[in-house]
Amino acid sequence: MSEDFAAVAATAAERLAAHWRDLATGELPVVPPGGPGTTKKALPTTAPEHGEDLTEILNDTWHTIVPQLVHWQHPGFLGYYPTSNSPASVLAELVAAGLGVQGMLWSTSPAATELEQVVCDWLARALDLPETFLHSPGRGGGVIQDGASSAVLVALAAALHRASHGRWRTHGTEGRYRVYAGDQANSCVAKAARIAGVGDVVHVPTAPHTHALDPAALADRLDADRAVGLVPAAVVATLGTTATCAIDPIAEIGPVCRERGVWLHVDAAYAGSAALCPEHRYLNRGLEHVASYAVNAHKWMRTGTPCDVLWVADRQALTEAMSTAPAYLRNAATDSGRVVDFKDWQTQLGRPMRALKLWYVLRAHGLHGLREAIRHDIALAEHLARLVDDESGFHLVTHALGLVVFRCDSDQRTLELTTRLAAEPSLLCTPATAYGRPVLRAAVGAPYTSKDTITRAWSTIRAHART
Amino acid sequence: MSEDFAAVAATAAERLAAHWRDLATGELPVVPPGGPGTTKKALPTTAPEHGEDLTEILNDTWHTIVPQLVHWQHPGFLGYYPTSNSPASVLAELVAAGLGVQGMLWSTSPAATELEQVVCDWLARALDLPETFLHSPGRGGGVIQDGASSAVLVALAAALHRASHGRWRTHGTEGRYRVYAGDQANSCVAKAARIAGVGDVVHVPTAPHTHALDPAALADRLDADRAVGLVPAAVVATLGTTATCAIDPIAEIGPVCRERGVWLHVDAAYAGSAALCPEHRYLNRGLEHVASYAVNAHKWMRTGTPCDVLWVADRQALTEAMSTAPAYLRNAATDSGRVVDFKDWQTQLGRPMRALKLWYVLRAHGLHGLREAIRHDIALAEHLARLVDDESGFHLVTHALGLVVFRCDSDQRTLELTTRLAAEPSLLCTPATAYGRPVLRAAVGAPYTSKDTITRAWSTIRAHART
Repeated sequence: MSEDFAAVAATAAERLAAHWRDLATGELPVVPPGGPGTTKKALPTTAPEHGEDLTEILNDTWHTIVPQLVHWQHPGFLGYYPTSNSPASVLAELVAAGLGVQGMLWSTSPAATELEQVVCDWLARALDLPETFLHSPGRGGGVIQDGASSAVLVALAAALHRASHGRWRTHGTEGRYRVYAGDQANSCVAKAARIAGVGDVVHVPTAPHTHALDPAALADRLDADRAVGLVPAAVVATLGTTATCAIDPIAEIGPVCRERGVWLHVDAAYAGSAALCPEHRYLNRGLEHVASYAVNAHKWMRTGTPCDVLWVADRQALTEAMSTAPAYLRNAATDSGRVVDFKDWQTQLGRPMRALKLWYVLRAHGLHGLREAIRHDIALAEHLARLVDDESGFHLVTHALGLVVFRCDSDQRTLELTTRLAAEPSLLCTPATAYGRPVLRAAVGAPYTSKDTITRAWSTIRAHART
Repeated sequence: MSEDFAAVAATAAERLAAHWRDLATGELPVVPPGGPGTTKKALPTTAPEHGEDLTEILNDTWHTIVPQLVHWQHPGFLGYYPTSNSPASVLAELVAAGLGVQGMLWSTSPAATELEQVVCDWLARALDLPETFLHSPGRGGGVIQDGASSAVLVALAAALHRASHGRWRTHGTEGRYRVYAGDQANSCVAKAARIAGVGDVVHVPTAPHTHALDPAALADRLDADRAVGLVPAAVVATLGTTATCAIDPIAEIGPVCRERGVWLHVDAAYAGSAALCPEHRYLNRGLEHVASYAVNAHKWMRTGTPCDVLWVADRQALTEAMSTAPAYLRNAATDSGRVVDFKDWQTQLGRPMRALKLWYVLRAHGLHGLREAIRHDIALAEHLARLVDDESGFHLVTHALGLVVFRCDSDQRTLELTTRLAAEPSLLCTPATAYGRPVLRAAVGAPYTSKDTITRAWSTIRAHART
């Protein structure tokens, strides 16, 4: 079977390379034609009794699955925020899958753990994060999570542990703890607070013209809640909100949290990558006040999903919250205190070798290459913003980093355009609500996007608006 | 870059195939020689400024990383429970990574969602699970999680939602809800309860000679807690506990939970796969009472980690607990109610195309092939159990499915043997505590294990015991 594998894997790699060339030409539809049930109908209802050839399964993949996918790397994909990818990342996924290790403890695959410590430190240095976020020589460290949602959940657990002086581990949340976020924070914050057993997240108002969290409103709310006996456990601020890429003022929020002993987590899932470029290091202002910080490398760093890096300033706060020590996981390395066991840095026990693809991407692209890719995307977004701004009947709502947010001159026309674009196969924009009105978002970041593809996409949007 | 990719990926596939051949010979050490810091010292402290060749990175992988891994697919790997793998699974990981889709919503990649529904139904039928666990025609359905820990956490969230009649979503756990499990349940249950904000899990005693959860003790505890105003929200039972592969009696626990309106989650992470074989369908007794059920396909189904399948009997209970509906995720398909959005079946928002590798594995091996692999491993465990039983100075503590648990004639000798085996490069057994005494576990399931490799492993263990 091993002999066959190498040959079939080579074929698969060629098909993927051809698929990427097809994507680059823009000829494939971004959004598949089939309605609900199309794929289901094409598949049998039971698994086969006897094994089939890998080549046949590969053929079926291209016949049945690929035509019914949304192509997130298509140059016409402008939806949500990008889910990035690159040959280096895909190669690493192949190798990591083939090696098949389980990195829950240092002792269950030492290189998996140490590589992850090293690449998290690499990335912290490349982003110019505070030194305390480093494994070495810092007191903190980075860990790869499977997304910004998991990073928030882990941060909330550590925050609850700290706010309760450890009582949370045994007694739970007891209805006393509160989690705060701007009203523009991603829905994953509310979901994480719910899963952590604290109920509704407290949504703090954001500034009317920037959608950025208002530090004074936050301070007032924290103090008012504390006055009635509630315990503010965590604040989640955002660098690059989903709707408009708003940037919460960490330099002002940080002291508000620090003075009150509240854990500050910063969700920089999208915008954080921009700090690879010195000209965007304003994003780092105030991070010295932050307890935990997360960036999705799979959004804007050519790394396939999932790859979220979560850094904490004090690793002990995290591991005290998340640790388990059953007899069947005991080992001499853990007992020595000389190693990191990443099972205590995440909600799960098991974990694949998560660091390999970030290592491959950072090395294959180099920091220079990643910076150039980000600058390229930002320049294309500026191009699109100018096109929007020059167009009568359209309003440029906001434009930040790779995101352009726009609307038509009436809400009804915006909603009509949204409906028409949902049926357009050549591009994908996603709707949102910003400043109380319906808007459309175009996020630049797919790998084959160019000035031409952006210009063409805008022509298509204009044409739909005029229909 | 795409051209290079196919060539380098072909090389990587050949190196993996060679690596698997090396594993099969048993010549590689299972456990690497280097102590803490070995890998870290071999790597630079900063990411490179300029990109490097993929071939060079691949060479470094085999030079720096592979020699410092624990090889979970080595025939001498008898630790924990197996983390399985196969060429089909690795091929699927390559393809899924290359396609790079994001399956949070049906609309963000229809085929990813529908394929997952189909393969979860395939597996439910292959395991002969109750029909209610099917997406179609059942009221429930399956979803792929990243491990048994996540499956438990998701189940607890749904259970808390149900126990609180929805109040949990807004008010949190309020210190009123309790989660119960046998005292032999995996540590992930206690960790999930802690993360869910309910504090300590209530550990119910297990029977003294089987380590299986005692239904009468459970009923007593549930009633006693309810009598003092607490709300039992969930019971987690286990099919195949970590220490001894104990089987909790679901047919008796089920009615206890049902009569009291308590959510019953069954963690069948390891043992669940055995139900592929009709002769092990006793494992399914009582599953008609169960609210959620999870099996790690990455343990005993030739699927690489992570791949845990979680089934629920009532999908609405789950999605009501986990749903989010911000404006930027709205789409016509979701609004129509005709599709499944898997973001509402998990703690995270984003998700890669998780189903592809289970589809590849089920097709490439066929159900017949997977059954034969399980029977092969069980026969090898029986062989090992006989060797232990025949050996003076050793006691066979228990033997179930692919797991053999043994100890020496004194606890001190068992602990000495454990220390010596920790330094043995040719095999890996893990220690545990069973029936109050230290034991060693040997779990059969790595792909190249044979009667010969088991016999050799036992000789090595014996030799260490006599030193």
